[in-house]
Amino acid sequence: MSATIDSTPAADGYRMPAEFEPHDGCWMAWPERPDNWRRNGRPAQAAFAAVAEAIAESEPVTVCVSDGAFEGARAQLPDRVRLVEMSLDDAWMRDIGPTFVVDRRGGRRGVDWRFNAWGGLYSPFDRDERAAEKVLELAAADRYRAPIILEGGAFHVDGEGTVLTTEQCLLNENRNPGYSREEIERILLDYLGAELVIWLGQGVYSDETDGHVDNLACFAAPGVVLLNWCDDENDPQHEVAVDAERRLERARDAEGRALEVIRVPGPPVMTITDTEARGVYEVLGTHPRRPGDRMAASYVNFYVANDRVIFPLLDESTDETAREILEGVFHGREVVGLPSREILLGGGNIHCITQQVPRTALDDRLVTP
Amino acid sequence: MSATIDSTPAADGYRMPAEFEPHDGCWMAWPERPDNWRRNGRPAQAAFAAVAEAIAESEPVTVCVSDGAFEGARAQLPDRVRLVEMSLDDAWMRDIGPTFVVDRRGGRRGVDWRFNAWGGLYSPFDRDERAAEKVLELAAADRYRAPIILEGGAFHVDGEGTVLTTEQCLLNENRNPGYSREEIERILLDYLGAELVIWLGQGVYSDETDGHVDNLACFAAPGVVLLNWCDDENDPQHEVAVDAERRLERARDAEGRALEVIRVPGPPVMTITDTEARGVYEVLGTHPRRPGDRMAASYVNFYVANDRVIFPLLDESTDETAREILEGVFHGREVVGLPSREILLGGGNIHCITQQVPRTALDDRLVTP
Repeated sequence: MSATIDSTPAADGYRMPAEFEPHDGCWMAWPERPDNWRRNGRPAQAAFAAVAEAIAESEPVTVCVSDGAFEGARAQLPDRVRLVEMSLDDAWMRDIGPTFVVDRRGGRRGVDWRFNAWGGLYSPFDRDERAAEKVLELAAADRYRAPIILEGGAFHVDGEGTVLTTEQCLLNENRNPGYSREEIERILLDYLGAELVIWLGQGVYSDETDGHVDNLACFAAPGVVLLNWCDDENDPQHEVAVDAERRLERARDAEGRALEVIRVPGPPVMTITDTEARGVYEVLGTHPRRPGDRMAASYVNFYVANDRVIFPLLDESTDETAREILEGVFHGREVVGLPSREILLGGGNIHCITQQVPRTALDDRLVTP
Repeated sequence: MSATIDSTPAADGYRMPAEFEPHDGCWMAWPERPDNWRRNGRPAQAAFAAVAEAIAESEPVTVCVSDGAFEGARAQLPDRVRLVEMSLDDAWMRDIGPTFVVDRRGGRRGVDWRFNAWGGLYSPFDRDERAAEKVLELAAADRYRAPIILEGGAFHVDGEGTVLTTEQCLLNENRNPGYSREEIERILLDYLGAELVIWLGQGVYSDETDGHVDNLACFAAPGVVLLNWCDDENDPQHEVAVDAERRLERARDAEGRALEVIRVPGPPVMTITDTEARGVYEVLGTHPRRPGDRMAASYVNFYVANDRVIFPLLDESTDETAREILEGVFHGREVVGLPSREILLGGGNIHCITQQVPRTALDDRLVTP
């Protein structure tokens, strides 16, 4: 029940809403692969289940899981979370799922970006490449097949015409080597139904995604950007943050507004322990996890559900500051922190494992006739 | 999004509606296993696709398919048919899917019967055993886990309290050896929300399901039963039909009505050809297909969709009689015949590969406020 459409969302009057606009639900996947998740994924599964449960308090959640892990996932997830079978290579629904777009007449479709496992970092990735198609079948939504390799974590939108992204990821030779910056920008705008791209430079230091913006900065509202901050001038993350802040302060969004930039101090340096590294079984196609490897920890990697924000708890010393900042910008939403070290060990965080389904104009009409 | 409920549908005010009551949709699966479907399932896939397409003209259809066959199925099915991944052992959604039940307040749940592949005829069957659970997750419907082994093709209901079934199947030692007829009857009534069981004896001659009623007889309306008929006294099917007719004529339904029995003459004897048998790859766990084996062909193995009846075309000489009979009883529904030999070769027919989702009382309210 998903036709593939040859045009683009922009040409058809579709746009990607901001994450803080109303949702009909959220898609996730289940962490299983023992060469990325320690102890056969058990600790990560507990963390994912907590995220699913927290989001399900606010909006319907569907979790995709392999046939082999189906019963185990069912046992760990609350009844209200829907479980569906899907063969995947890993569990990053933000990056492998479709980007949902809506129009003003009740339509909802999905963009299926091409996928090469973050520039070929993992293999195989053919099942992840097909995840968006399967989600769109399940969601009975038609599909735009985008011409470029891109992951959902590599961009954010404000829902009012502005796209936020990073040069490190989108202009990387390991993604779309034949495309110019102008061509990439044109495709982004056409497939997200937007008008203007704000380019940041590098992403978070040591981020294996080649600098996904969703770990560095995001819109909290139109005109308001949260930025992962680092005060320590000896930390390479400091220069990344300073450069991003400078670009954001100089930018104007699609509506011509200057941006308010709010710094969100990151946690102290976090590294993988010996025990954690030993729990991962390295095979061909694995991105290795070594003791002492620095993790790309950031509080902006949160998920905005309908009436709550689910953010990562990383370290006692900085968690409360992050909570206060989020409570300050997300009025009317409960701010819920969840331990996320086990997700971070796999290479991402809460935003990376979710994919929202924006509410359609038709839903609005049903709710408020 | 499917809780398992400890009570029974009858106790909770739920019942299985008759197939001729309104539907919200239909579930099917995709034939793949090369040890049951000749030529790696290609001819059967074409037949299944035609059934899916014909039903989709009348109500939404979802087809379940393995990851490996997903793209091939997508290419063979029209866009309007929804495709979802599901690991299964075979493709008989009638027998492995849930039996949907509804109440008067908009509720819809499903009965998940235990499954042992028709008395252990095929192996493995663990993935088919879990199909109902997965369908109920997808349908976001809560689940009754029935205590007995049973397949959906082994019973029919009139939606007004009457169940039709066969002794050959339900009292078979290969299904529920520890249960008496009275216990089986009690469970049937409790889980189908019904009041009275009409027992037929044997099913169709050479039917590998041990006489599923859905190949022998069905309700066309409350008080009206269609019976697969055989005039040839030298054919073992004759005695089966005569016995069934006698039992039906003596029976009263749950409302106390006598039944009108309408004979539907079956086709001439149909057997598997050499070429057909050679196309099946026999492995451990296969039910063998031999040249000359008689197939359990019957016209009553049809599917009643919302505004059409999809019935099997079996043989030119008898197809038209079947069509006339169906047109005579299903007023207001288009009667559509589809070539079904390739389905029959796998051991069943159109009814066996479908599973309706009855419309809920809430749907009715939405449609007619």
